[in-house]
Amino acid sequence: MSNTAGQVIRCKAAVAWEAGKPLVIEEVEVAPPQANEVRLKIIFTSLCHTDVYFWEAKGQAPLFPRIFGHEASGIVESVGPGVTDLQPGDHVLPVFTGECKECRHCKSEESNMCDLLRINTDRGHMLHDGQSRFSINGKPIYHFLGTSTFSEYTVVHIGCVAKINPAAPLDKVCVLSCGLSTGLGATLNVAKPKKGQSVAIFGLGAVGLAAAEGARISGASRIIGVDLNPNRFEEAKKFGVTEFVNPKDYDKPVQQVIAEMTDGGVDRSVECTGSIQAMVSAFECVHDGWGVAVLVGVPNKDDSFKTHPMNLLNERTLKGTFFGNYKPRSDLPSVVEMYMNKELEVEKFITHYVSFSEINKAFDYMLKGESLRCIIRMDG
Amino acid sequence: MSNTAGQVIRCKAAVAWEAGKPLVIEEVEVAPPQANEVRLKIIFTSLCHTDVYFWEAKGQAPLFPRIFGHEASGIVESVGPGVTDLQPGDHVLPVFTGECKECRHCKSEESNMCDLLRINTDRGHMLHDGQSRFSINGKPIYHFLGTSTFSEYTVVHIGCVAKINPAAPLDKVCVLSCGLSTGLGATLNVAKPKKGQSVAIFGLGAVGLAAAEGARISGASRIIGVDLNPNRFEEAKKFGVTEFVNPKDYDKPVQQVIAEMTDGGVDRSVECTGSIQAMVSAFECVHDGWGVAVLVGVPNKDDSFKTHPMNLLNERTLKGTFFGNYKPRSDLPSVVEMYMNKELEVEKFITHYVSFSEINKAFDYMLKGESLRCIIRMDG
Ligand SMILES: NC(=O)c1ccc[n+]([C@@H]2O[C@H](COP(=O)([O-])OP(=O)(O)OC[C@H]3O[C@@H](n4cnc5c(N)ncnc54)[C@H](O)[C@@H]3O)[C@@H](O)[C@H]2O)c1
Ligand SMILES: NC(=O)c1ccc[n+]([C@@H]2O[C@H](COP(=O)([O-])OP(=O)(O)OC[C@H]3O[C@@H](n4cnc5c(N)ncnc54)[C@H](O)[C@@H]3O)[C@@H](O)[C@H]2O)c1
Ligand SMILES: [Zn+2]
Ligand SMILES: [Zn+2]
Ligand SMILES: [Zn+2]
Ligand SMILES: [Zn+2]
Repeated sequence: MSNTAGQVIRCKAAVAWEAGKPLVIEEVEVAPPQANEVRLKIIFTSLCHTDVYFWEAKGQAPLFPRIFGHEASGIVESVGPGVTDLQPGDHVLPVFTGECKECRHCKSEESNMCDLLRINTDRGHMLHDGQSRFSINGKPIYHFLGTSTFSEYTVVHIGCVAKINPAAPLDKVCVLSCGLSTGLGATLNVAKPKKGQSVAIFGLGAVGLAAAEGARISGASRIIGVDLNPNRFEEAKKFGVTEFVNPKDYDKPVQQVIAEMTDGGVDRSVECTGSIQAMVSAFECVHDGWGVAVLVGVPNKDDSFKTHPMNLLNERTLKGTFFGNYKPRSDLPSVVEMYMNKELEVEKFITHYVSFSEINKAFDYMLKGESLRCIIRMDG
Repeated sequence: MSNTAGQVIRCKAAVAWEAGKPLVIEEVEVAPPQANEVRLKIIFTSLCHTDVYFWEAKGQAPLFPRIFGHEASGIVESVGPGVTDLQPGDHVLPVFTGECKECRHCKSEESNMCDLLRINTDRGHMLHDGQSRFSINGKPIYHFLGTSTFSEYTVVHIGCVAKINPAAPLDKVCVLSCGLSTGLGATLNVAKPKKGQSVAIFGLGAVGLAAAEGARISGASRIIGVDLNPNRFEEAKKFGVTEFVNPKDYDKPVQQVIAEMTDGGVDRSVECTGSIQAMVSAFECVHDGWGVAVLVGVPNKDDSFKTHPMNLLNERTLKGTFFGNYKPRSDLPSVVEMYMNKELEVEKFITHYVSFSEINKAFDYMLKGESLRCIIRMDG
């Protein structure tokens, strides 16, 4: 047992006081974990678009002051009453969605959309008591996605914590707790290309490149990258993308361009853009008879997916996935093992490192489109 | 060898001279089969909606005079040059779609949409030479779906002929060559419910009831039948349908009614109506996380399938199927075996029998909605 167990910990956290304003490193108080909770020492965290999106708070109800961050690696500092699965010293990845192991989703082999711990972007407190574990001078600071990893210490529901191989380098595997696993799993768990098949990837951000990495691992013969931004193409070559299509270069729909390139369509497609046009194109560009299209991108509230039903009757399959269909606790440890076995390459996703005091730089890199993943060292 | 081999056969056929006018039993000449063709003696045929639809010719270019019919059983009378897979005396089911065994679809495990022999409703001649094998006084009569089974003898491409167990009763298994296999396969091959799961069937015509039969065979715990016509409900009980929903009885969308009945949605749904509203409802009524919806009904040309992409991202799967994903030559013989082993009940689909001379009665029964399947005895 650490000697901080059961005590309030005072530590540094990057607090977002207002939408779109630089984070401020503050001293916060982190209360001890309650039933079914653990307190983690965060070692590395990285920045994901979802942090930026809710920090900008353009699309949803703002909830401030808040501690963002959900891609991270850490070590269990102490556990709440009744927690037996985890103990101090365990190496873990906190996850923005959870696995209670009790509900119908957790019991289904196919779903990872836990009824209890499914992502909730509006909630700013812990489930157990509706309270925040963070405060400054007694004033609560809101949680984000149940993780709030932009803090030296954070409290997380045990259902949102994956225990991983203690030999795994925490500065690398932290990126597996969100975007990379999402893209990778979309290909490996949902699109499931067979060796030698062709795969189109729409959107070559971190999620799309992770989907491409999944296609490479599956032994795809052709990986066609589709993006509106040609700057993405150079980088994508490192991820096994063999051909590029920019929809802006053609005066016909991109699904038709791809059908012509591939004698009727690709075998699999994975959409990682959030654009409704790309979703429809990703579906319509798969081959009839056996093609499978997988949607990953988060659409706008008012978007409508439209296609002629004959495209379905001609034996195409359309699926969506959330977090690459990985169950956080059951499956993430094996994704870490894929990295340890050198099946999965993670380093190429990491384009920048900054110290915790420079966390706002990570936001700049992402906003300028310069980074894929920027790792934030908590001890720096 | 029969002594008619290589000869023109004169026999009776029911000719449709004009759209929507009663068929006329005529004496026709049936030319011998050419390369990759066989001539069949039709023993039983049944009437399917597709015959009625093209006979009415309201929605498509009329092609008359034509010999309709595509659900049937028969015996090979003679084979064309080079045919080795089939021989005179073989018991067979002619099929409206084919399997060349050479194309990418035929070589794919997943597809049955043969590039060469896929259903073609516009073609009125044989592929080999662009000619018809039927004539009256030298004037050609058009083929329909490559089968034209409303004739005592017909010529069919070998890719559209399934050789079946000679012990199978031809007056029963004839109905397996179209609608029944379509519905059955949609459930067994595509929706694939697990034992104990719930299944919603939209549309309780012959295809939908065959889909329900597939759900019964799969051990579904609940089979919810959805139809706008409450007359269908009584009959559907024989097919294992346990609950009924008439969308007209509610002032909220039927997908919501079903979600409330099933704690969030059914595990599987199969749409067998052709109505675009039903297609959308069938998709949206499956449970998030694992639900699979399968579309079977043939939509109108201008229909658009619309849904919010979140319904997909919440891990629902949407698929369409053609002929229940059965490959006609490779798979239909085993469907016949399911009947022979008493796994599949076929008798309950057969509501009427008529003699060939009364074939127009079969049209009346169907148009009045009185029949599921009416068998036409060719020797009568
Ligand atoms: N489902 C999940 O669990 C999950 C998790 C993380 C991220 N996401 C979603 O995945 C998507 C991708 O995330 P990211 O971090 O890689 O984003 P990103 O912004 O880095 O990359 C998206 C890329 O898509 C391209 N793009 C946009 N519209 C396009 C179009 N019409 N055609 C082709 N390319 C187009 C952009 O140019 C960009 O390069 C986002 O929608 C994100 O919300 C989903
Ligand atoms: N894909 C294939 O290979 C294939 C093969 C054969 C038939 N089909 C199609 O399958 C469909 C069903 O064929 P069938 O012969 O059983 O037809 P049918 O007309 O006997 O039955 C259709 C049923 O659907 C019901 N219905 C119509 N709209 C509805 C709605 N909005 N909600 C609920 N119920 C509704 C009707 O009342 C009717 O009972 C047709 O569209 C047909 O073209 C497809
Ligand atoms: Zn759960
Ligand atoms: Zn993320
Ligand atoms: Zn073929
Ligand atoms: Zn039919």
